[in-house]
Amino acid sequence: MSDIRQQALDYHEFPVPGKTAVCLTKPAETSHDLALAYSPGVAEPVREIAANPENAYRYTNKGNTVAVISNGTAILGLGNLGPLASKPVMEGKALLFKHFANIDSTDIEVTHNTAQEFINTVAAIAGTFGGINLEDIKAPECFVIERELIARCNVPVFHDDQHGTAIVTAAGMINALEIQGKLISDAIFVCMGAGAAAIACMTMLVKCGANRANIYMLDTKGVIHSGRTDLNEYKALFANETDKRTLQDVIKGADVFLGLSGPNVIGAEEVAMMADKPVIFACSNPDPEIKPELAHATRSDLIMGTGRSDYPNQVNNVLCFPFIFRGALDVRASCINDEMKIAAVHAIAELAKEAVPASVLKAYPKVSSLSFGSEYVLPKPMDPRLLPRVARAVAKAAIDSGVATITTLPKYAD
Amino acid sequence: MSDIRQQALDYHEFPVPGKTAVCLTKPAETSHDLALAYSPGVAEPVREIAANPENAYRYTNKGNTVAVISNGTAILGLGNLGPLASKPVMEGKALLFKHFANIDSTDIEVTHNTAQEFINTVAAIAGTFGGINLEDIKAPECFVIERELIARCNVPVFHDDQHGTAIVTAAGMINALEIQGKLISDAIFVCMGAGAAAIACMTMLVKCGANRANIYMLDTKGVIHSGRTDLNEYKALFANETDKRTLQDVIKGADVFLGLSGPNVIGAEEVAMMADKPVIFACSNPDPEIKPELAHATRSDLIMGTGRSDYPNQVNNVLCFPFIFRGALDVRASCINDEMKIAAVHAIAELAKEAVPASVLKAYPKVSSLSFGSEYVLPKPMDPRLLPRVARAVAKAAIDSGVATITTLPKYAD
Repeated sequence: MSDIRQQALDYHEFPVPGKTAVCLTKPAETSHDLALAYSPGVAEPVREIAANPENAYRYTNKGNTVAVISNGTAILGLGNLGPLASKPVMEGKALLFKHFANIDSTDIEVTHNTAQEFINTVAAIAGTFGGINLEDIKAPECFVIERELIARCNVPVFHDDQHGTAIVTAAGMINALEIQGKLISDAIFVCMGAGAAAIACMTMLVKCGANRANIYMLDTKGVIHSGRTDLNEYKALFANETDKRTLQDVIKGADVFLGLSGPNVIGAEEVAMMADKPVIFACSNPDPEIKPELAHATRSDLIMGTGRSDYPNQVNNVLCFPFIFRGALDVRASCINDEMKIAAVHAIAELAKEAVPASVLKAYPKVSSLSFGSEYVLPKPMDPRLLPRVARAVAKAAIDSGVATITTLPKYAD
Repeated sequence: MSDIRQQALDYHEFPVPGKTAVCLTKPAETSHDLALAYSPGVAEPVREIAANPENAYRYTNKGNTVAVISNGTAILGLGNLGPLASKPVMEGKALLFKHFANIDSTDIEVTHNTAQEFINTVAAIAGTFGGINLEDIKAPECFVIERELIARCNVPVFHDDQHGTAIVTAAGMINALEIQGKLISDAIFVCMGAGAAAIACMTMLVKCGANRANIYMLDTKGVIHSGRTDLNEYKALFANETDKRTLQDVIKGADVFLGLSGPNVIGAEEVAMMADKPVIFACSNPDPEIKPELAHATRSDLIMGTGRSDYPNQVNNVLCFPFIFRGALDVRASCINDEMKIAAVHAIAELAKEAVPASVLKAYPKVSSLSFGSEYVLPKPMDPRLLPRVARAVAKAAIDSGVATITTLPKYAD
């Protein structure tokens, strides 16, 4: 582990600090080049944009850029370490945007006192970019921040910790339930954790067919039920009319355990109490809610996913966020609406059912199975088909739901 | 001209919109790469930065980045066209930062109602970057904006329209006066224009030895003198105790005319009235305060500079801003102080006295003279010696004046 620690630090430090840089897409070699790029030539696109703001998409990089913005209040699982400490994560996100979807992404870390100051800051700079990806912002502020920014910005705003997680979780869950022979509408869900990701995941699963009455969400005080008076408005949406109060009360007979909380919160006893053919997504990183080895040793009929790349069924946001923005930018969508999110869920889920190309097999030499089944319910991050499949589905949903400025579906090379 | 117009638009539009993109400085090919760049490895630099903010310079791109920020209130000479219309100019600046000084620069356009909102926005995001370059912000708001941001940010903040212009103007002026055999302390200056650049230029010339009593600044109402009651605090600094009121009153016998106003404000008559061996810098772009052809036809003993690349002695900010930031970033200066600015003035001025290398001669095949003299008082933008000379002088001045975090002078390959 200390070796990995040093490797990670060295990776970030050498040969130059950080992970991203700026490069030029136009020549700057001659005086003539500079006369076009800067004064006097640059006055021409300035005038065109002043005459019609849409021309910013024609003459600047706006249309291919996404700002990755954080305040560092919920960095990974490390907590509120402040904006500057979040910079490596935001640069990492920018690296993933570029590598997977050729989106030019700038990290911005915001220092502020109140949520309103954060909102005002992001709204003031949003016009620079084609989209805004919010990241590592703690709940419940993240909900009001996203809602206000969606209202104030005329480019897509997407809080990845909520919706990226929800989309990938829903895609994996739909496939896992199908393999287990269960209907999502009948499945009983236990969601351990009631933060931004948990609430977004359960909201998305309801949109994908889960029955709200079958969902038991737990926070640090136990089951979220209609008798509680200590719930914020977001948790209150999942208050169940039930006399069950504890994890043990709800996990008995449950079809699904979704962990978005912390390490080792369930053990063999709880796993044994679940219904036949259960699904466990234990997404706490790096240490899941239950170790896959222990869960599999307890029973053989389960499907298990985690947030880790070294176990099967990694539930990883990178399957979604580069491609949902790719699709949104390609048709210049004004927002990322539910239709686009649900289209992404199904595009990701469907891809897992197809045979993987040789390049993907080669990228994962140590992985035992890349055929649809209990150890492969989600595509792998290195699968090059994610870009065309997810971006196309998202772009089409944007067009069909009327939020696209460009209404011809772009071509994506499969 | 319409051909140049179309060339400039095509340059900005094809093959991709805009001029800058993001590229990766680290590998992102394998699962292992991604485990270092993002979760779980990225947690290590996060922890290091949380423990000591200085580690942001070690593990992120912060130390080599400059944000180019505008609100679009004074775009080139085109006026207040709004933030989005300024984007091509800010991207152009980012291109120049990268091309000339390998600085990774992000453009940010800010939408706001009040100067205070602009200040709050920039202050909130400043920690992301190693420096802040303000651009195309109208006077007099630009003065308070820069002053407040310098106070609130712990990275260098530099308003290029003021100080970049002032530094290059002062460098050229020092050389032109030397060639004309005049002492800067005795020279009589007429400055047409009283905006941000004019005030910064005259302030810098005073710091370089000009006598404030010998400076006559004019705004649209004529000479700025101590009897006027309509002056803002910045213009008031240049209120002269004089009974001269008009351009004709002050230009008679003047040694220097500096134009930072608009096209064709002086003619042959005014040029003829100046002292022997005068200096005229007519910097309005693209049309100078007097056409060089007309000035030279009027008298043969003058030295003439403009803002244009197609005449000798181009007074161009690009001789300064990439390199002053290069020096400031290289020693992690907390600000760009007067010592650093004055060091830049002299480094630029001195470079014009040296024989130019063959590569520069080749880059300017149409230029008649690249030897120190009346047609070559400033180096050319494509001169590769600008980086080592100016950055080194600035870095040294930062160290000597106690604002550098790194106190060993970096090595610059000449």
